[in-house]
Amino acid sequence: MSAWINGRRGAAIDYRDRGLHYGDGLFETMRVRHGAVRLLDYHLERLFVGCERLMMGPPNARLLRRELEQIAATRSSGVLKLIVTRGVATRGYRPTGREKCTRIAALYPLPRTAALRIPRALSVRLCAMRLGSNSRLAGLKTLNRLESVLARAEWRDARIGEGLLLDSEENIVCGTMSNLFIRRGSLLMTPMLDRCGIAGVMRRWVLEQSSALSVRAIERRLRWEDLARAEEVFMCNAVAGVMSVGQISRRGELLRPLQTDAAVQLRSRLAAL
Amino acid sequence: MSAWINGRRGAAIDYRDRGLHYGDGLFETMRVRHGAVRLLDYHLERLFVGCERLMMGPPNARLLRRELEQIAATRSSGVLKLIVTRGVATRGYRPTGREKCTRIAALYPLPRTAALRIPRALSVRLCAMRLGSNSRLAGLKTLNRLESVLARAEWRDARIGEGLLLDSEENIVCGTMSNLFIRRGSLLMTPMLDRCGIAGVMRRWVLEQSSALSVRAIERRLRWEDLARAEEVFMCNAVAGVMSVGQISRRGELLRPLQTDAAVQLRSRLAAL
Repeated sequence: MSAWINGRRGAAIDYRDRGLHYGDGLFETMRVRHGAVRLLDYHLERLFVGCERLMMGPPNARLLRRELEQIAATRSSGVLKLIVTRGVATRGYRPTGREKCTRIAALYPLPRTAALRIPRALSVRLCAMRLGSNSRLAGLKTLNRLESVLARAEWRDARIGEGLLLDSEENIVCGTMSNLFIRRGSLLMTPMLDRCGIAGVMRRWVLEQSSALSVRAIERRLRWEDLARAEEVFMCNAVAGVMSVGQISRRGELLRPLQTDAAVQLRSRLAAL
Repeated sequence: MSAWINGRRGAAIDYRDRGLHYGDGLFETMRVRHGAVRLLDYHLERLFVGCERLMMGPPNARLLRRELEQIAATRSSGVLKLIVTRGVATRGYRPTGREKCTRIAALYPLPRTAALRIPRALSVRLCAMRLGSNSRLAGLKTLNRLESVLARAEWRDARIGEGLLLDSEENIVCGTMSNLFIRRGSLLMTPMLDRCGIAGVMRRWVLEQSSALSVRAIERRLRWEDLARAEEVFMCNAVAGVMSVGQISRRGELLRPLQTDAAVQLRSRLAAL
């Protein structure tokens, strides 16, 4: 397998790239379906917002879109990962503002779970690691992902599909690789991501579906007690879509949200995209 | 300029390396003097502690030491940067435990400021960005350095040599690329690094000099008020050594610690190493 580096086939990254030295960059993980990228506009928008917030010179938007479309067209389905770094530089944290970003695109096979037509209900566990808070980085999908690595390293049991992450004040934030929604009646809630966590493109899409679903969707601080009172819980990401949560465990405690109505509706809307 | 990648001359990193995707790795920035690495044992110890805390298979210790010694021997002075990542892998945060780490070593010229025999007193500014806290990563020199990048991007004025970083509770933590010490009488204090910050090898060395300096050295929470009451302030890192701080500014407020006794003594001990 190889990648497209700045638009050309290759596998080699310059060792001086700031993406390697500092995690100084962003990424997008996109679902390829029927040779096209699902929610490509949302991915590109998030990437460009990220570049702006990191004060990073962005890639050429038209060039990048064409590249991603061309790569996606080579596969009927899969995962397309795009990394954009601040580029090659000499030693030192300070960006000069003259760096030229590096773009790295690679295709991966679809993970087995995401390929299932009707995803089984996810088993979720509460992670012990607490996310650090930094409003400057909150919401962004940066290359600084050691917290995600450590959280995902907490379990090996393949029956557990996702881990739930809290911040240091015990607010629920997100999964290791997905966002969380909980529903009570017609109120659909998802954690605010102003301190930590990644604002997923699928999360954005779900929030925008609220009127079609006849729910009121809001972002707010959520805690374990909110989860315990939920009628429905689901998690989502760009690759797997919307996954109903069947159970959530933390030390000896087990929650079993019973309903799946919103997730079922969202999946059928997603299939029609 | 090129680097040594896994012991061989080269400049190309595999795009699948977890160091690039997640910042999943560690680094050391070492001072080469007279063809040898200063404080090499301390650097290696910190690196191996970091590997353990990240549950990362470490490089072969003897091989790595020999490599670094051989590289340092090619230069009379400079900066030797070593990056160790968890290595090449497929997509997904979870480490399998079977990854083989990648080591990247590169030589850089000594920065001008570090080359000065008697460093001028540093001008330091207080950064606006607040460091996030995560005890799992605190103290480690990981490749997740976006906070350092954003903090260092706050100023361009070349007369300002360093930025001081606080955590979200306004505790002083460290500089963007150095550790901080403050002295009042015979009490030498440096911030605790149990929540964030990097525990520098020069910081360790300074702490170990306390008896020779006839001071009592302690780690504790420090705040702006402690800085305001300090008789002496200095910052240190492995490359530049110990740098007296001449002034520290935050919005309209200016501190001018007057003494430099401890720093002068430390620099002369360091020169004799």
